[in-house]
Amino acid sequence: MSLKKTRAENYPDWYQCVVNEADMAENSSSPGCMVIKPWGYGLWERIRDIFDEKIKSTGHENCYFPMFIPLSFFRKEAEHVDGFAKEMAVVTHSRLSMQDGKLVPDSKLEEPLIVRPTSETIIADAFSKWIKSYRDLPVLINQWANVVRWEMRPRLFLRTREFLWQEGHTAHASAAEAEVETKQMLEAYRELCEDSLAMPVIMGRKPEYDKFPGAVDTYCIEAMMQDGKSLQAGTSHFLGQNFAKSAGISFVNRQNQPEFAYTTSWGVSTRLIGGLIMTHADDEGMVVPPKIAPYQIVIVPVVKNPADEDAVMTYIEKIRQDLSAQQAFGEKIRLKIDRRDKSSVDKFWEWTRKGAPIILEIGKRDADGANVMVKERIRLGTPEGKQIVSRVEFCTTAAQRLQTIQQAMFERAKARLLGNIRTDIATPEQFKAYFAESNQWIEDGKPAKVAFVRGKWSGDQNSDELLKEMKITIRCLPFDQSGTQGTCLLTGKPATLDVIYARSY
Amino acid sequence: MSLKKTRAENYPDWYQCVVNEADMAENSSSPGCMVIKPWGYGLWERIRDIFDEKIKSTGHENCYFPMFIPLSFFRKEAEHVDGFAKEMAVVTHSRLSMQDGKLVPDSKLEEPLIVRPTSETIIADAFSKWIKSYRDLPVLINQWANVVRWEMRPRLFLRTREFLWQEGHTAHASAAEAEVETKQMLEAYRELCEDSLAMPVIMGRKPEYDKFPGAVDTYCIEAMMQDGKSLQAGTSHFLGQNFAKSAGISFVNRQNQPEFAYTTSWGVSTRLIGGLIMTHADDEGMVVPPKIAPYQIVIVPVVKNPADEDAVMTYIEKIRQDLSAQQAFGEKIRLKIDRRDKSSVDKFWEWTRKGAPIILEIGKRDADGANVMVKERIRLGTPEGKQIVSRVEFCTTAAQRLQTIQQAMFERAKARLLGNIRTDIATPEQFKAYFAESNQWIEDGKPAKVAFVRGKWSGDQNSDELLKEMKITIRCLPFDQSGTQGTCLLTGKPATLDVIYARSY
Repeated sequence: MSLKKTRAENYPDWYQCVVNEADMAENSSSPGCMVIKPWGYGLWERIRDIFDEKIKSTGHENCYFPMFIPLSFFRKEAEHVDGFAKEMAVVTHSRLSMQDGKLVPDSKLEEPLIVRPTSETIIADAFSKWIKSYRDLPVLINQWANVVRWEMRPRLFLRTREFLWQEGHTAHASAAEAEVETKQMLEAYRELCEDSLAMPVIMGRKPEYDKFPGAVDTYCIEAMMQDGKSLQAGTSHFLGQNFAKSAGISFVNRQNQPEFAYTTSWGVSTRLIGGLIMTHADDEGMVVPPKIAPYQIVIVPVVKNPADEDAVMTYIEKIRQDLSAQQAFGEKIRLKIDRRDKSSVDKFWEWTRKGAPIILEIGKRDADGANVMVKERIRLGTPEGKQIVSRVEFCTTAAQRLQTIQQAMFERAKARLLGNIRTDIATPEQFKAYFAESNQWIEDGKPAKVAFVRGKWSGDQNSDELLKEMKITIRCLPFDQSGTQGTCLLTGKPATLDVIYARSY
Repeated sequence: MSLKKTRAENYPDWYQCVVNEADMAENSSSPGCMVIKPWGYGLWERIRDIFDEKIKSTGHENCYFPMFIPLSFFRKEAEHVDGFAKEMAVVTHSRLSMQDGKLVPDSKLEEPLIVRPTSETIIADAFSKWIKSYRDLPVLINQWANVVRWEMRPRLFLRTREFLWQEGHTAHASAAEAEVETKQMLEAYRELCEDSLAMPVIMGRKPEYDKFPGAVDTYCIEAMMQDGKSLQAGTSHFLGQNFAKSAGISFVNRQNQPEFAYTTSWGVSTRLIGGLIMTHADDEGMVVPPKIAPYQIVIVPVVKNPADEDAVMTYIEKIRQDLSAQQAFGEKIRLKIDRRDKSSVDKFWEWTRKGAPIILEIGKRDADGANVMVKERIRLGTPEGKQIVSRVEFCTTAAQRLQTIQQAMFERAKARLLGNIRTDIATPEQFKAYFAESNQWIEDGKPAKVAFVRGKWSGDQNSDELLKEMKITIRCLPFDQSGTQGTCLLTGKPATLDVIYARSY
């Protein structure tokens, strides 16, 4: 009973089907914006809570800064405004009034306000007031917020005009300390993606021409989607003294000299949910890693004869009590008992589409035999995906089972990533031929038609044209550079840099 | 060592001093908007977490809706747009470009977008797609979000152009069910304010003329500030079928007939932090109720001789370990050990200004004697505010101590509220004379110069003029109506309605 569109039939339509059928989000009547529905928002809440703990345990504190940024703030950092000017929501009026029977904008603002596409400028302004001496440093803050970038081809979770994210902003007394911070938070993103989202990533540095506007260095994590394309899942920027100079964040250093501070910024967004879908979902719908599942176990009562209802529900209550004593991943197991007035088959498919990790179907026979029918989402349709297990055994090992699922999901995705990075492409001709193919989805255990190529790059910052022609991008310069010499796959020139070439979102 | 301004000297300046000195928030360079700093945001996080649990335990789910609302949505509900048109941020362009060397708004939108002042219209639009049958009802959702109202006289936490809040929105199959929901959530707000913020409130209904624009009934909780003014701390609206009609939320009912749904909405905001300040802060700064304190206990090491440092820190570590085994209010005690490179006196005052409930000052003598020096914020400056207690006794009773403080704070505020509602004012003349006085702060245990009057009102919806003249408002019609007849304090006419008259924020 697969989705209307499978990955093989039409990958983009399949993605949309997964989001719809799991009821995670929908397009809104507000153009280009999405409504994040409870199941999608529940995933974000889990991601937020896990990462918020990391943010705090690494010494950062949460704040909240205004979402309106005076236009003049963008004039200060030329590269920054160049990078964002084309996709900014601009507030120009502060009321509506009736004119000729029509509601129209009124009370024009003296200075237009930009709805934040990111907050470097407004936060740097605050930092310039907070920081006077090296004693005030480091400043380590973060905010959870909505941001706006005027996307022309919106797509749920991947590219919407408004999205939710966290943005960390820090200021330091030395470049070295700021660089350590930048990499520490990139590592925190890797850990979030791999350990909680079961989504393996490649860590690296962006090429010069693809840095964050205003940054000295941009680091990123890149994940492989099931169609062989790359998704930038998080970025961490070393901003050097650029924003400090434009906003005047200067401090008196230990040598009693004035110096500009060194700043960083780093962010991940609701885009991660798009990555999660394209890493784990299958032709039956969403598959959610247990660690971030709003419900890890869903119980569907199966009552064929109304006279059995009490016995079934009493038995389910016993299971609930047994499970409430168990912890998975250091927290209470998140359990849902689905008592809605719907058929148990419909409920099963609904939770399957949503990707609940474990569904228990409990009927009179299970109650009588002290058993449970366990269905694991990742093994749907296989003989092992459906097991009758004694209640006691299931309840005492449920946490272990969830951990095993989490691990299996990561390993499957990791194998897909590692198995689809071509390193044997040696010449520009082979390279062109490889990417002349179009992407398709990667069947588990089989090689992709087109995925990632790891090869040499000359470092020529004018590679943009060639890349555009081939519809590919340089995703990153991975941290594990070999240092050997070879041939640039774009130009054929001698080259030493290792890069990841790929199609991308 | 009181603040620059005390309550008696200048109450509004005192408020600003408390916010500054506790480092809770500051005015931003973005006009009329605030930066919420870690201590202020920490309070909001605690309020959010506590109320989020309540929202979920009462069957609601979190979503996220776009912050941009098409202008045309506001045309649909005439009262609603009338209520908000004068204070709306309007987005009219989607990029910036360089013209004659100046950055200017470019790419005019076909339809202007309003930055949500509240989300009834956009959420009703979504509901109209979600709801087809009585089986789809009730829909119970909530979002945590930022909203914008173009305030002309902004004040930190109380009135800023952008603020943070939660807004619940529900749809039901009957008016009765929606009314139960409206009152249930008002009761949840009372519980939040009284049990967690230690801020007593009066529950009631707003007069017709002061309802939420588009509502059938608006219910509210009102709190008394230390200057005798009232602060509307939360509202819950029964919207009847008004928004359902304008957005087309119709469903097929059990009788198989089409019917418009009955909706509600309810919200509390970062304004609660303003209420918290004006309920509890004193002339020495902020005082935070333990239940929502980011840190409930702060340890300040007092090292006079550097040779003692190891011994003091080892002893403090022992206290930390003892406390980590304790729970207060069902959660781990939130403890901060302040090791910054500052004098212990400065640290003590900093945490006093922030209002940390308990400060422990720990020096060599305490370590040697196995004691702790306990300073309770609410008893600052009194002999009992400073106690030497054995470590074991302090650690094993810390949770109890925090609960006692919480209770004492509530009782003090409750006594202030109950002691300052005048019920003996019988005539319009007495009434006018009472409010001819200006407000001042209410010294504990003493009656206010001007605070609340509980008295009769004719119910005349054209009372606005008279109220404005006297610079007072009708805060609410309290739920406990006496039903007796008396004299309207505004007009002298016979009247049966009991209302609370007061100055307000």
